[in-house]
Amino acid sequence: MTTIAILGATGYTALELIKILLRHPNAEITALTSREDTRKIELVHPSLSGRLDLSLESLSAKEIANRAECVFSCLPHTASAKIVPELLHCGTKVIDLSADYRLNSVEVFETWYAEKHPDPNRLGKVPYGLPELFRKQIIGTDLIANPGCYPTSAILPLAPIIKTNLIEPEDIIIDSKSGVSGSGRKLRLSTLYPECNENISAYSVGTHRHTPEIEQIITTVSGKNTKVIFTPHLTPMDRGILSTIYSKPTRPVLQNELLETLSNFYRNEPFIKIVEHLPSTKDVSGTNFVHITARVVGNRIITVSAIDNLIKGASGAAVQNFNLMFNYPETTALI
Amino acid sequence: MTTIAILGATGYTALELIKILLRHPNAEITALTSREDTRKIELVHPSLSGRLDLSLESLSAKEIANRAECVFSCLPHTASAKIVPELLHCGTKVIDLSADYRLNSVEVFETWYAEKHPDPNRLGKVPYGLPELFRKQIIGTDLIANPGCYPTSAILPLAPIIKTNLIEPEDIIIDSKSGVSGSGRKLRLSTLYPECNENISAYSVGTHRHTPEIEQIITTVSGKNTKVIFTPHLTPMDRGILSTIYSKPTRPVLQNELLETLSNFYRNEPFIKIVEHLPSTKDVSGTNFVHITARVVGNRIITVSAIDNLIKGASGAAVQNFNLMFNYPETTALI
Amino acid sequence: MTTIAILGATGYTALELIKILLRHPNAEITALTSREDTRKIELVHPSLSGRLDLSLESLSAKEIANRAECVFSCLPHTASAKIVPELLHCGTKVIDLSADYRLNSVEVFETWYAEKHPDPNRLGKVPYGLPELFRKQIIGTDLIANPGCYPTSAILPLAPIIKTNLIEPEDIIIDSKSGVSGSGRKLRLSTLYPECNENISAYSVGTHRHTPEIEQIITTVSGKNTKVIFTPHLTPMDRGILSTIYSKPTRPVLQNELLETLSNFYRNEPFIKIVEHLPSTKDVSGTNFVHITARVVGNRIITVSAIDNLIKGASGAAVQNFNLMFNYPETTALI
Amino acid sequence: MTTIAILGATGYTALELIKILLRHPNAEITALTSREDTRKIELVHPSLSGRLDLSLESLSAKEIANRAECVFSCLPHTASAKIVPELLHCGTKVIDLSADYRLNSVEVFETWYAEKHPDPNRLGKVPYGLPELFRKQIIGTDLIANPGCYPTSAILPLAPIIKTNLIEPEDIIIDSKSGVSGSGRKLRLSTLYPECNENISAYSVGTHRHTPEIEQIITTVSGKNTKVIFTPHLTPMDRGILSTIYSKPTRPVLQNELLETLSNFYRNEPFIKIVEHLPSTKDVSGTNFVHITARVVGNRIITVSAIDNLIKGASGAAVQNFNLMFNYPETTALI
Repeated sequence: MTTIAILGATGYTALELIKILLRHPNAEITALTSREDTRKIELVHPSLSGRLDLSLESLSAKEIANRAECVFSCLPHTASAKIVPELLHCGTKVIDLSADYRLNSVEVFETWYAEKHPDPNRLGKVPYGLPELFRKQIIGTDLIANPGCYPTSAILPLAPIIKTNLIEPEDIIIDSKSGVSGSGRKLRLSTLYPECNENISAYSVGTHRHTPEIEQIITTVSGKNTKVIFTPHLTPMDRGILSTIYSKPTRPVLQNELLETLSNFYRNEPFIKIVEHLPSTKDVSGTNFVHITARVVGNRIITVSAIDNLIKGASGAAVQNFNLMFNYPETTALI
Repeated sequence: MTTIAILGATGYTALELIKILLRHPNAEITALTSREDTRKIELVHPSLSGRLDLSLESLSAKEIANRAECVFSCLPHTASAKIVPELLHCGTKVIDLSADYRLNSVEVFETWYAEKHPDPNRLGKVPYGLPELFRKQIIGTDLIANPGCYPTSAILPLAPIIKTNLIEPEDIIIDSKSGVSGSGRKLRLSTLYPECNENISAYSVGTHRHTPEIEQIITTVSGKNTKVIFTPHLTPMDRGILSTIYSKPTRPVLQNELLETLSNFYRNEPFIKIVEHLPSTKDVSGTNFVHITARVVGNRIITVSAIDNLIKGASGAAVQNFNLMFNYPETTALI
Repeated sequence: MTTIAILGATGYTALELIKILLRHPNAEITALTSREDTRKIELVHPSLSGRLDLSLESLSAKEIANRAECVFSCLPHTASAKIVPELLHCGTKVIDLSADYRLNSVEVFETWYAEKHPDPNRLGKVPYGLPELFRKQIIGTDLIANPGCYPTSAILPLAPIIKTNLIEPEDIIIDSKSGVSGSGRKLRLSTLYPECNENISAYSVGTHRHTPEIEQIITTVSGKNTKVIFTPHLTPMDRGILSTIYSKPTRPVLQNELLETLSNFYRNEPFIKIVEHLPSTKDVSGTNFVHITARVVGNRIITVSAIDNLIKGASGAAVQNFNLMFNYPETTALI
Repeated sequence: MTTIAILGATGYTALELIKILLRHPNAEITALTSREDTRKIELVHPSLSGRLDLSLESLSAKEIANRAECVFSCLPHTASAKIVPELLHCGTKVIDLSADYRLNSVEVFETWYAEKHPDPNRLGKVPYGLPELFRKQIIGTDLIANPGCYPTSAILPLAPIIKTNLIEPEDIIIDSKSGVSGSGRKLRLSTLYPECNENISAYSVGTHRHTPEIEQIITTVSGKNTKVIFTPHLTPMDRGILSTIYSKPTRPVLQNELLETLSNFYRNEPFIKIVEHLPSTKDVSGTNFVHITARVVGNRIITVSAIDNLIKGASGAAVQNFNLMFNYPETTALI
């Protein structure tokens, strides 16, 4: 049994995490933190009524470390990196769901996030928590940079076909459609129900912070400098990301070869399903699965992926990493 | 041509009002107010892009009266009654979409709204803007209390059958289902998209402020003291109210007699449609129409009504009242 | 390990059942039937891609019994009762999710379902699969009548307060709001997306087949002849039933007494949560939980319940019954 | 006053058309046809209750021509071109909302639609009903090929920047997101509410029939051979198309130059709004407006357009064409 604390437990990601961990035979949630809220967690998330008897607390790193062998941080970026060093120092393992440790370069971080990084020296040394690509590094680490939701949906279909030289790495267009839960549980006019319902729009065109994350990870995995144009869209659903990705083949290629390349690459992966049909977000909703397919259209390859942004795009991946770090079967609580 | 000012122009009700008035051949919008926002209206409501070249302004009653012969107030309750007296004093006519002038009794107002009424002496003298029941009073007035959305959906089906002694006036249950736009364009956790989507819940059970409004108006119209239990529900759609109303017949009655009573009562009303099928909110969405039907089930009469909460439940009714007050054909801009 | 066949595996209920059973450590799905479809199940339900390697088959009762110790029937009413007798004869246990064995009386069945019952002699002898009320009968049986979705949402909050004489049993109004998945996966104009989205309507007013089921079960449990008016509504969401139930207290009663009565009644039930707040369908979505609260308003008691119509209202309850019948811990695969 | 017949009046497009024409001061609907249905139109479309007293009829071309000076055909492709020649012969003007007269080449039609064209000789001679690009031809014609919904959303933003040589005409990616009403009011498993809700997927990747239509019209307008990759997506909303379009600039270009080029091109167009913000489908929902913007990102130009697929993408455009053909002000009934 591993004791667990969740930092920033009031949001949607934390709620999913709690629900998954309640099903986990080897995990025991022992602390939930919030800087301001001190209510019982079931008043914050009524879906937990009668299921978890804990209240939110404002705790120091030391207090957290005394209660938990593993910490999942659902804090906002920079807030996370302010507490992580001390948690590690106290011997706690940390899975950070914020963006703080995903980028290798302080400069890139500070350019895209427009804030000083509180723990710059660790950047570049923290495994990126996509087990399908970095399982070995994850197993031995005490800190994980849990991937962003859009990057997960883009990197998994692209990495294999860039690595095998099937597409040009610098001419990639990622058109992603996300459910609204990706915006978090914050008061914002733009995510009120009557603003989002019956509505689709693009946002952060050319400026979304997941762009450098996608480029860095694919570059790392493939060894090829990768450039992407990434356009996220807000769509009227709770959950799910569908990414439609346009790339240029380096040579004539057929759909079957693409599907085989993907299938071979992910042959032993329990959560990646290479499918012949066009994926739907609903088919993976509430699960840690990823559905991926590929097509050849005109002079382009189109790859399409579907994930649940809160599960494989956040909390499911976090538990998958937890399982690896603590030597539990990788799919525990996730199937 | 009548010049028009809209107070509190940043919300959903005001937006619908503007859209309707842009189609009105005899209305010219000359002022839009907000206490804080000074942006161009098309930045606040992008659906007005290129359609209305006005900015929000913070204006005194006098300034408003200088620009507009008619004022539509979309201000919150008590804010409206603070400015209305001076507007009337300046000779402007006012259609008040807030709850400030709907109730006859200061005591009832202050009990249910928990605030002091800023203009108590006018209560009881202001016509209630349901033309189907109070057309004569509306025509000659300079101030209208525009009805609440739920009351409109409940009063219209109930008034005729209470007035004709078909049902017991003190044993009525109104179970209403509303779209989220009824909650207004305010920052609230409970109306975020991921909170409302795929979700239905009851709220303000036994305590909703529209309860005394419904009781008072039906009592006035029917001459019979009326008591209702009113349960509103928040449902995952933008617009629409469906009210399912359970009442007790005073004597055996057949569905046909009910439908005929309703049809006769509203025979000449352009916006009320008594239908045989069970109404759907979608069928009246974006319109000023009301669909009503009735059934006899066991020892109860069930009446069902459907309206668009933002149109017949707010801005459409307001323009219908405007047409009557300014002697334009009642359906102008509404059909 | 128990081998399992699912009859009528193409619908939404069957899909949920399969997903739950895939998480069940003691269940192995060995057959899936359809009268017409012979595709691989993952082509019918793409969310099962790579998760269950079975094809649909048209099988006789004998063939089914050879492969499965337990059969879940998701067949339509009367189709189920045509095959159940032979399955039982072959020694298979059956959980019937159709309405065929829920009513005690052939006459009542044939009146409400307008078809001849294929297995009339069994009526009245089959346990009704609500473990919270009939656990003892369920444990020893070889055939279960799995409850209807609306009845589950209505019976659970009502049974305790009728049984304890808190309300009049013959003056009950049940106003229920259901997601569209309750209509099944059939081609119907009325359940097309553009017909249901942004729309609420009542249907089957006074004529819904779940009415006699609700009345019979509450009468059985409470020993008091029960009469209900039941009005279902179709609402724009996939899943969930919210039932708002109006009843008359037999004597003055406070909210606390109601909540205590309910809490005591369900004290040891793992899936029933008596809550103080007003329940939301979203809080129980995807789970086997039931949230129930109560209020006193005017001369009425209002009880509100929320369930997931596909889980506690169908497949989750079915697995709960399966666990009881096969002596597995009752919550297996359901928490 | 112009008398009007609508062919194929049971679908969503016809319903929108009827609603718009009911507001048109110079249009009188005199016939509604259906091959099978003979009900009153208000039973087919309950939103028309009490608003249009006509029944569906199965009429010959001659009978239609006797009743109507203008025919809107909402028939499926090939069904439309089977009746259009005779209608024209009888002296009726026709606005064809099907795809039958949009393509210039019989070969292209028969390749993409996989059916014989019933009236091949007219292909290439029928004006394409986008008034913003073909107003002169529309004014004098007796037959209009009303544009497809996706083509409208793609052609309007692209035509000006291809015509002015700002982008490469043969390297264009159109990623479109449409509401479900675009699929029509047909019984299909894939458009059931529980299949579409909370779901996004791509469909007809590389094979959608609007591809050659887009290419042909832009080629015609710009004089440059145009090639597009077009990927439609089904999204959980009733109405609206958002097209995100990726193209390559022929030379370095700034966002302002793009916006100015678009603004100049559509300077006098009442329905086209070039906006600085990123468009939302909701902002144009229920209207004939088109919102368009442009961005420069990396080595690509991204143009984004939003329309209502049923209005500017179908019935609104049809009425706009009607107004031009019959010499009414172009915006009548559309603003």
